[in-house]
Amino acid sequence: MTRTLTGLGLAAALTAALTLPALADNPAVEARQGQFKLFAFNVGVLAGMAQGEIEYDADMAQTAADNLYHLTRHDQSRLWPEGTDNESIDNTRALPAIWDDLEGFANRFGALQDAAAAMQGAAGTDLASLQGALGGLGGTCQACHQEFRGPAD
Amino acid sequence: MTRTLTGLGLAAALTAALTLPALADNPAVEARQGQFKLFAFNVGVLAGMAQGEIEYDADMAQTAADNLYHLTRHDQSRLWPEGTDNESIDNTRALPAIWDDLEGFANRFGALQDAAAAMQGAAGTDLASLQGALGGLGGTCQACHQEFRGPAD
Repeated sequence: MTRTLTGLGLAAALTAALTLPALADNPAVEARQGQFKLFAFNVGVLAGMAQGEIEYDADMAQTAADNLYHLTRHDQSRLWPEGTDNESIDNTRALPAIWDDLEGFANRFGALQDAAAAMQGAAGTDLASLQGALGGLGGTCQACHQEFRGPAD
Repeated sequence: MTRTLTGLGLAAALTAALTLPALADNPAVEARQGQFKLFAFNVGVLAGMAQGEIEYDADMAQTAADNLYHLTRHDQSRLWPEGTDNESIDNTRALPAIWDDLEGFANRFGALQDAAAAMQGAAGTDLASLQGALGGLGGTCQACHQEFRGPAD
């Protein structure tokens, strides 16, 4: 009986060890995922207008672009701690490739910052300007995702 | 048998109707919650230093304050759609009081913006300056939460 309980206890401990890191909230992971939700929310407005799903509105477009500009000023250095890739924890799509090539990852983020600044200068002008800037912005998202983001669960 | 199935179908439909709005991802709710995760992440650095849990580092403090400054520039007008209070959907602590007093809510956010700007001017100077600014910043968080945030689940 003692051995059985010990066995169960060990199994429970192993299960806890295997699942706790994945279940535990990691503030850095939550923060960076929050950042991406905010990116997507604002890119969604701009892409919706570019594709005619949302009527072009200069003020709304400028606000979304201003939001993206400020969001992309958030420093990234504390949002990507070692051990928060998708092989180490659940609930992330961050590939280990990020930590294998931090400089390349930082460069990708720099390109996003530049594209967001370009969009800030274009979005409120007219629809054609917004559409012109969206290609560059979307391209920086896509390039980074191809290299550094794993598949959805 | 048909009635039983119909009954089950109806129950399933009602359950779906009751649970789908709560389970469905709402981009605005996700975006605003992401915003708060990012607020908390950066306030955590500043509060940790103020309380001696993290050694004061002028660069790290300034970066966290700069982050907060930019985050609080994010326009709030599309993050709080009607029907996203904690009586209408799950997984939010946003009280209906927000929509009963949108002007008061906006004023609270304005106070946060001012406190974040003050912190940006103080955090990198020295620990005493950071500590001096934290009271104002924390006060704006607390005042808004008391009035507009419901209890955790």
